[in-house]
Amino acid sequence: MCPIMMQIGTIQVYTGDGKGKTTAAIGQAIRAAGHRLRVMMIQFMKGKINYGELEAVKQILGFTIEQYGGPEFVNKNNPDKEDIEWAQKGWSRAKEVIQSGKYDMVILDELNIALDFGLIALDEVIEGMKSKPKHLELILTGRYAPREIMELADLVTEMKEIKHPYQKGIQAREGIEY
Amino acid sequence: MCPIMMQIGTIQVYTGDGKGKTTAAIGQAIRAAGHRLRVMMIQFMKGKINYGELEAVKQILGFTIEQYGGPEFVNKNNPDKEDIEWAQKGWSRAKEVIQSGKYDMVILDELNIALDFGLIALDEVIEGMKSKPKHLELILTGRYAPREIMELADLVTEMKEIKHPYQKGIQAREGIEY
Repeated sequence: MCPIMMQIGTIQVYTGDGKGKTTAAIGQAIRAAGHRLRVMMIQFMKGKINYGELEAVKQILGFTIEQYGGPEFVNKNNPDKEDIEWAQKGWSRAKEVIQSGKYDMVILDELNIALDFGLIALDEVIEGMKSKPKHLELILTGRYAPREIMELADLVTEMKEIKHPYQKGIQAREGIEY
Repeated sequence: MCPIMMQIGTIQVYTGDGKGKTTAAIGQAIRAAGHRLRVMMIQFMKGKINYGELEAVKQILGFTIEQYGGPEFVNKNNPDKEDIEWAQKGWSRAKEVIQSGKYDMVILDELNIALDFGLIALDEVIEGMKSKPKHLELILTGRYAPREIMELADLVTEMKEIKHPYQKGIQAREGIEY
C-alpha cells in the first residue's frame, strides 16, 4: 500500500485583458482530472449552454462544470436583479463546494468580473478563500482581479493582450472563442 | 441541409514567463473538440509520459497528443544530438499534420522554446506557418517567442508572472504543474 500523500493546495489567479484565462483553467482541470483529482468548475456570468468546453468536459471523468448566469451579457452600470441573483446563487454553491471536501480543485471562472461588477461582496469571497481546506487547489479567473484577491493568491498570472484578431475585424468563432 | 460554413483560421501565440501557456492551449483544444473540430497537439521537448493531460485527453474524441522529446531537460547551451533529432522529427510531423487537411486545429506546444534553443530553424517554421491551410487554427506556445513569429501571428498573449508559489518554496506538484 502506498502512503497517502497530502498535497498543499494553492490559490491561483488568472487575470488581465488577454485571451487564455478560462482556457488555462480548463487545461489545469484536464491535467488534474488526468491524475484522478476531482475537479469542479463554477462559471459565473455564463449561461450559454453551447460553450464547446461543456460538451467535451462531459466525457471526462472527475470534472464537472456548473453555470450560474443568464444568456445575456450583464450591464455593468445597471445589472439586472436576475444577474445579481445568479451570481449570489453561484457564490453560495461555490462556498458549499469549497467546504465540502469532495473536490481537490475548484475553479471559480469569471468570479473576478462578478466582483468587479459588484454582484458579490469582496469580503465574503476573501473570507471563503481564507477558510478553504488546506489540500484544495483554488483557481479564480477573470479580468480586473481586485488587489485584495491578488494579495491573498499564491500564483498570479496576468494574460496581456499583445495582438488580437478582433482588431482585424474577425468575429468570435464557434470552437475558438466559445 | 445547412450550408458548410468555412471558418478562417488564425495563428495564436501564447508566450511569456507566466503559468498557463500550455494549459490555455489544452483548454482551446477541449473547446474545439467540444464543437467536433479535429485537434492535434504536438509537444516539443516533452517526453514524460505521465503528464496528466495525456491521460484525460485519451477520453476526448477528436483530440490527439503526440510527444517529441526525451525524458530529460534540454541543456540550452549544449543540447544533445538526440534532443535536436527529437525536435526535427517533431517539426517534420508538424509540417505533415498542418498540410494534411485532416485537422481544424494544430497546437505546437513549446515550439517557441525549441526555436529559442536553436533546435529547429526559424525560417522553416515561418515558411510552414505561411503555407498553412486557410481554415486551420494554428497555436504556438512557449516562452521566448521570436519576434518574427509574433509578427506573423494574429493573436499574441503574453502570460506575465506576477506571483509564483515556487517563490514560497512549494515544489512542482502532480496534477497541478504536470
